Amino acid sequence: MFMSDIRVAGTGLTAFGNAPERTGRDLFAEASIAAFEDSGVPREDVDAVFYGNFMGELAEHQGHQGPLMAEAAGVDAPATRYEAACASSGVAVRDAVVRIRSGAADVVLVGGVERMTNLGTAGATEALAIAADELWEVRAGMTFPGAYALMAQAYFTEYGGEHEDLAHIAVKNHENALPNDNAQYQNAIEVSDVLEAPQVSSPLGLYDSCPISDGAAAVVLTSAAYAEAHGLEAPVAITGSGQGGDRFALHDRDYLARSPAAREAGEEAYADAGVDAGDVDVAEVHDCFTIAEVLAIEALGLEPVGKGITAARDGRTTAEGETPINLSGGLKAKGHPVGATGASQIAEITTLLAGTHPNSESVDDATIGVTHNAGGTVASAVVHVLEVVA
Amino acid sequence: MFMSDIRVAGTGLTAFGNAPERTGRDLFAEASIAAFEDSGVPREDVDAVFYGNFMGELAEHQGHQGPLMAEAAGVDAPATRYEAACASSGVAVRDAVVRIRSGAADVVLVGGVERMTNLGTAGATEALAIAADELWEVRAGMTFPGAYALMAQAYFTEYGGEHEDLAHIAVKNHENALPNDNAQYQNAIEVSDVLEAPQVSSPLGLYDSCPISDGAAAVVLTSAAYAEAHGLEAPVAITGSGQGGDRFALHDRDYLARSPAAREAGEEAYADAGVDAGDVDVAEVHDCFTIAEVLAIEALGLEPVGKGITAARDGRTTAEGETPINLSGGLKAKGHPVGATGASQIAEITTLLAGTHPNSESVDDATIGVTHNAGGTVASAVVHVLEVVA
Repeated sequence: MFMSDIRVAGTGLTAFGNAPERTGRDLFAEASIAAFEDSGVPREDVDAVFYGNFMGELAEHQGHQGPLMAEAAGVDAPATRYEAACASSGVAVRDAVVRIRSGAADVVLVGGVERMTNLGTAGATEALAIAADELWEVRAGMTFPGAYALMAQAYFTEYGGEHEDLAHIAVKNHENALPNDNAQYQNAIEVSDVLEAPQVSSPLGLYDSCPISDGAAAVVLTSAAYAEAHGLEAPVAITGSGQGGDRFALHDRDYLARSPAAREAGEEAYADAGVDAGDVDVAEVHDCFTIAEVLAIEALGLEPVGKGITAARDGRTTAEGETPINLSGGLKAKGHPVGATGASQIAEITTLLAGTHPNSESVDDATIGVTHNAGGTVASAVVHVLEVVA
Repeated sequence: MFMSDIRVAGTGLTAFGNAPERTGRDLFAEASIAAFEDSGVPREDVDAVFYGNFMGELAEHQGHQGPLMAEAAGVDAPATRYEAACASSGVAVRDAVVRIRSGAADVVLVGGVERMTNLGTAGATEALAIAADELWEVRAGMTFPGAYALMAQAYFTEYGGEHEDLAHIAVKNHENALPNDNAQYQNAIEVSDVLEAPQVSSPLGLYDSCPISDGAAAVVLTSAAYAEAHGLEAPVAITGSGQGGDRFALHDRDYLARSPAAREAGEEAYADAGVDAGDVDVAEVHDCFTIAEVLAIEALGLEPVGKGITAARDGRTTAEGETPINLSGGLKAKGHPVGATGASQIAEITTLLAGTHPNSESVDDATIGVTHNAGGTVASAVVHVLEVVA
């Protein structure tokens, strides 16, 4: 029933990184200006603004950011804020796809912002913890590095693998970020750097963890009919959308070392687009920690369960591999302003497929890309399929 | 293009009031159990959970409440949290309507929760302020009673009126709440009580202001096809939906004494349903302060601009009047757990039209009802039209 194509008419990203002095509205204005310029769509044509943000209440004492960000973008249209922890703008994209497909909108500005570094590392870690169960996890001392460390330990126990396997993921993602001028880290690292870095929560160390980041992302989505009627240069379509959910707290889950929510989201998105996992040429997945990339590519069916751990080490997911993963640098090296990440993945895959990304030459013949955005310990997951329009 | 009916298959409300010891998940479990029982819809049939919450990050240190609340409701389906300040579950209802109309879902559990009284009155007032502009309003000392007092002063200056006119609104809404066992206040008040109450921000006093409340609301929405196929008793349909936006801060607005966002939302919802303001038999509107009810009924076209101020005093909006407003007691007397309010309005109008509300006898022949849910100083507004299925 999800038949009509949604065109990505334009994308805009701020640099991701340390900008503690910049407000959320400032960041979103920059991203949306870039997206509108890229799209050629006039602001007056926007029917709605769908906006993702996670921790604005804590970082800026600012809720109700939908209309605030519409105003920052210079758009006079109703605006809604979506919050699904680190998948906040992923769900915003999903609802924008549904809105356009329903016929109730032709043009939606979708994006997200997070401002984090002004909280400091400890403050941001504490704020991020509101994505977990306050009563049963956070009060027991759980933070996200600890939660993903549990998932990594469970993976090693169930399927094998070692920290050095994970290290190759970090090395790959830093390598991918080298030509990405918006990335938070443009420095190459080696496996030994990862293994020798300070431990955060065993087995995960500093280089297994994405950074605390400020940043914004915006994309202009239109119906195919609008894009055609206005002669837009919009060669990439969102053809599939899926969302999954899981029990909220880790201890209530059937699996620690799998992500059923992401598998459901992926299967729904593939079916929606009429593609299979084997058709996917390139993907941006939610590598908030190195182990998360393993769980993501297995949930998406890009690697068999228990085999994703060696994908980077054996070169299957590197830029030269069969299915490059996180050519942007991923959350690890590109940065992870959480509310912006889902929309930024759409921007990265769009430009990769359109041939305008600095790493596009790694995926010359690619026609199908996937984004995977996760919230919390993957209690929420959103997957989109993007395709080059024939 | 919004053609297919959405059926309200079931509704559930907790009592609104002081329950500082109850968690959000506890409140939502109660409301959703009631909604499922009322609907006859099995939880396994739910395709998605759309959930509104405003200040959970501050009141419970809990974000990412979508999957948490799906779990509390016993539902295994993807869940999304919507936040639009006091219109949070209003936008959730709107997106649920779009989702079902798009064909991507047949059954959506929609609801909302707010937990506020554990913050205390000062803490809750400070938390509510995140719905206003932190940089340009809140840091200058603005709170919501102050903002609505400015709007009331502007109204009096532009169109006339006095505090005694507003007092009749509070008296009416307390009167309406008398038979509503879920209402926070079931006590009659008199105009003199309002006029003699402690002043909060001139001209508004304590009885012009809604209380701080805990509570939850849930509604089960289905496609008409699902309702018919399953033989559901679902005599009320959502036939129109609209959303509007405005500049975020009061000082950037064209009007202090009008709500263009609500007017846009109302016009869109009426057009969507194919009705006119004159067709509306009953409405639940967002009376966070008495003046807000005036602005709402004028924006909805139920009173001419400048005339709504006398509607309660002259009896046009009382239970015996031409168009009863807030037969539930409204935010003023029913209570205002902000994230729950939008969904609770759907529940109230549904039962009023279905003849199962304690005040249904006041609207015996009613076939068309409207809900109006506003965020902040009406930078967000959502309007729905509900109709008895012929």
